[in-house]
Amino acid sequence: MRVSQMLLPTLREVPAEAEVVSHQLLLRAGFIRKTASGIYTYLPLAQRVLKKIMQIIREEMDRQGGQEMLMPIIQPAELWLESGRWHVYGPELFRLKDRHHRDFCLAPTHEEVITVTVRNEVRSYKQLPLLLYHITNKYRDERRPRFGLMRGREFIMKDLYSFDQDEAGLDISYRKMHEAYTNVFRRCGLTCRPVEADSGAIGGSTTHEFMVLAESGEAAILYCTACDYAANVEKAITLPAAGLDPGMQPLELQEVSTPGKKSAEEAAAFLQMEPCHIIKTMIYKTDQEIVAALVRGDRDVNEVKLLNALNAINLELADEETVRQATGAPTGYVGPVGLKNIRIVADPEVMALANAVAGANKQDAHLMNVHPGRDFKPDMVEDIRIVKAGEPCPKCGARLQEARGIEVGQIFKLGTKYSKVLGATFLDENGKEQPIVMGCYGIGVTRTMAAAIEQNHDQDGIIWPASIAPYHVVVIPVSAKDEAQMNLAETLYRELNQAGVEAVLDDRPERPGVKFKDADLVGYPLRVVVGNKAVQEGLVEVRRRRSGQTDLIPLSEAVAKVREILPTL
Amino acid sequence: MRVSQMLLPTLREVPAEAEVVSHQLLLRAGFIRKTASGIYTYLPLAQRVLKKIMQIIREEMDRQGGQEMLMPIIQPAELWLESGRWHVYGPELFRLKDRHHRDFCLAPTHEEVITVTVRNEVRSYKQLPLLLYHITNKYRDERRPRFGLMRGREFIMKDLYSFDQDEAGLDISYRKMHEAYTNVFRRCGLTCRPVEADSGAIGGSTTHEFMVLAESGEAAILYCTACDYAANVEKAITLPAAGLDPGMQPLELQEVSTPGKKSAEEAAAFLQMEPCHIIKTMIYKTDQEIVAALVRGDRDVNEVKLLNALNAINLELADEETVRQATGAPTGYVGPVGLKNIRIVADPEVMALANAVAGANKQDAHLMNVHPGRDFKPDMVEDIRIVKAGEPCPKCGARLQEARGIEVGQIFKLGTKYSKVLGATFLDENGKEQPIVMGCYGIGVTRTMAAAIEQNHDQDGIIWPASIAPYHVVVIPVSAKDEAQMNLAETLYRELNQAGVEAVLDDRPERPGVKFKDADLVGYPLRVVVGNKAVQEGLVEVRRRRSGQTDLIPLSEAVAKVREILPTL
Repeated sequence: MRVSQMLLPTLREVPAEAEVVSHQLLLRAGFIRKTASGIYTYLPLAQRVLKKIMQIIREEMDRQGGQEMLMPIIQPAELWLESGRWHVYGPELFRLKDRHHRDFCLAPTHEEVITVTVRNEVRSYKQLPLLLYHITNKYRDERRPRFGLMRGREFIMKDLYSFDQDEAGLDISYRKMHEAYTNVFRRCGLTCRPVEADSGAIGGSTTHEFMVLAESGEAAILYCTACDYAANVEKAITLPAAGLDPGMQPLELQEVSTPGKKSAEEAAAFLQMEPCHIIKTMIYKTDQEIVAALVRGDRDVNEVKLLNALNAINLELADEETVRQATGAPTGYVGPVGLKNIRIVADPEVMALANAVAGANKQDAHLMNVHPGRDFKPDMVEDIRIVKAGEPCPKCGARLQEARGIEVGQIFKLGTKYSKVLGATFLDENGKEQPIVMGCYGIGVTRTMAAAIEQNHDQDGIIWPASIAPYHVVVIPVSAKDEAQMNLAETLYRELNQAGVEAVLDDRPERPGVKFKDADLVGYPLRVVVGNKAVQEGLVEVRRRRSGQTDLIPLSEAVAKVREILPTL
Repeated sequence: MRVSQMLLPTLREVPAEAEVVSHQLLLRAGFIRKTASGIYTYLPLAQRVLKKIMQIIREEMDRQGGQEMLMPIIQPAELWLESGRWHVYGPELFRLKDRHHRDFCLAPTHEEVITVTVRNEVRSYKQLPLLLYHITNKYRDERRPRFGLMRGREFIMKDLYSFDQDEAGLDISYRKMHEAYTNVFRRCGLTCRPVEADSGAIGGSTTHEFMVLAESGEAAILYCTACDYAANVEKAITLPAAGLDPGMQPLELQEVSTPGKKSAEEAAAFLQMEPCHIIKTMIYKTDQEIVAALVRGDRDVNEVKLLNALNAINLELADEETVRQATGAPTGYVGPVGLKNIRIVADPEVMALANAVAGANKQDAHLMNVHPGRDFKPDMVEDIRIVKAGEPCPKCGARLQEARGIEVGQIFKLGTKYSKVLGATFLDENGKEQPIVMGCYGIGVTRTMAAAIEQNHDQDGIIWPASIAPYHVVVIPVSAKDEAQMNLAETLYRELNQAGVEAVLDDRPERPGVKFKDADLVGYPLRVVVGNKAVQEGLVEVRRRRSGQTDLIPLSEAVAKVREILPTL
């Protein structure tokens, strides 16, 4: 393609609306335009990148025995009523009525349709396993769409669903997809890490997120430098606490005045103790009840873990009024001793304390020498704390490190959650009816494009990994008015394409500086400049976008050189 | 792929809901399943066919310089209000609100988004021409979805939009697309004919429909056997009438009693005249007025031509009450003589009559010796009649023939209809602002799959053209329990795939008859049977689905033979 003929509207200014780098660069480099909040038009360069990502995904799904199909975007409410999710989904589900006033939604995910399809067609264990996938638009009516393609309302996803006879079969399917996802992101040229994660609203037991590591990532992850352990901070665990105070004799409970010392740190400093000897008591409100969550003073509550421990749907910190009603004390002076009518959830580390300090459930007062078990009995002891970098790896004991990541894929063991409620069963070898055991596996295609940019850019623009670059090479004649240069550039451009290299020719009558800037912004992995040296000495300049390394090579070797470098980029 | 592992649920029964062959066979052969009325899930075999059709389309669009992009399905009402189509579209437009109560629709077509995109990015004639396309789902809330994929509510379309400086540029873009469409359907293995058509609600001047010829086609087309003239019957014209009665002296107007002779044929027979000497007068109601349409007694009114002549949006035959009010007579006795307050549109053939017969606007009476021009003066003389097979071709005078077709594509010269209303302009070479001249070009992808079946099937099932077949070859071991047969079949299956032939292995432990029936139903272009002859004599049976021709060939030559035959199918 000739740049003069392409719809490639680059911008010099950073668009004010764009908060993250990928959004800025996708707009500036002429890849996307906003059609409505969270809804984008993908211009030709973006579509080329998306097609490459989708092709890689297809190849890896097919390699594992995946069968591609295509399910509808618009779906009847009956299906979602049957699964129970019509009412579980809130305003993020786009709903509409057809001309006969029947209810429909725009699918945010396809568990319902695929499960019903398999229910209708599969009778026997002989028809299992099945790995079925499709790639299509998904819809989520986000309250506040933002970060460009990172949190849109219309986006492209690949989702695969596995159907097995039993958990052992699901394990195999899950491992296949784990491998396929690892391959997909590697082939897309991304540094990506699978991390243990929370399964959230989709349900199921085991789940991994695939995180593209990038400083701008919205998720914090912890990973071990010695072994392969890695987890979303929401999910990360650590070795069981050995206990700070083993064998310490319990002293008598004592109330002390701590005016104005509301935080664990303040109380600890005032009482000349380490924060790790404080019992931090947080009051939460769920959809069902009020609870007190106890962690050590040097720790923080992990709300995802707490939500799961309580088996609740929603969770939020209680407001001041609720705290007073539930405990009789203002926030900051709440403690577990004497608490009534609310459940207490304690982190195991708290139970290992002796002679600790806790709020007295009285304004400006704390209790000293609190002894868990003696002075209060928790209703539940569960890991509910946030693990931090520097703590030991739960698998091998080495130090955990923190990184930030962008979730581009997630794989779930669903088990029989959907097959049971939708009646997707099969007859096993003994002729007994069993629910099919399912898994689901998603990749955000448009999000992967954005994440690739978050991970691969510099101040000048995008740096595409060669495998997903919209084009491999831009050929730039220094002067489009110089006929000799143009002829050489044209010939090279044609030869590159004939050799299977995706090249564009920047034939615009612009100054070379403008073309170089655009080339850097768009992020072609390679740039070949055809200038006077090409005309006079037969030499062209081949520049690698990522490293900036520039080689002056004979024009006659340019095609071979480009083909040699490309696989290394 | 092994058939035992495929989601390929064939049915023995013809599903009751399916009215047309393609719908029946797509269901029976395991290609689609209904998710809701007019909304389908495409199972793996269908998705393979769709991908092949889309790939052919992409190659032909790209060959003409088309740039692929991707526009949103969900679109804000503002865009459609700006173009004026928010209110023009009736209940067939799916409408919905987002969580902030803003109006959106599911796009039935993309003129709005593409025109606004180009408006925002194109400033100068130097950026033109542009050919931009995408392939995505489209939505139309049909009152009565039916015929399977022929008239669905969610369907896949390719639409390309051309942007030119002037009509001459549009002519070039239009010709490119005409060529591309011809290539697409030829490469899909379809017998397809471009026909002149009516541009309908999309607007614009010239338009062609691409019709897959099939007896079950919903459209009637007329084509010349001598030249390349072909037109939808809605649009077909013929040579100007020479006139039946040249030089005949007008006689005096005379009223005759014709009790019970309401139709032109009855009146003609009663008066012992040919129907071609009758003036047939039809009363129509448009959104604006009541009109009388005159054609010869042996002709019928073409309502599409009449609608266009009147520049109306809707048109329907007037009911008895309206006819009486407008003419004073019951239907059957209406005529142009003495009609007041309604417009008269006459076909040119009517004006060439002399001493004709027409209704007297009185119960049971006709007028004889009616002389157009003398006894009535039409407000408009326009070609408003239906042309029939056997009439002369308007281009060369040879006889026209009739055929039935399924519209799979349509190309339009839009001109400046959308660019003017949406303000998509450019500065020409003289720095003057001009509206961009547009064309639009659509292919129904899912419809093309269905049309391919309407054109290519027999009583046993589908007969896929090789270029869009889900797989090229099915390898069938006669007995899956016979280890020797299975080994040979396995090897052949693997060798075929290694040689780039898309082969499936029917390894199911079914009787050969079941497998043969399924192979015919699914429509693989070639079937290779590996039986005892293969084990004992090294011979396999290669059968062509379309012709039934069966060759017994050495197993060692099977791959070469398949590769040799495939391109001919």
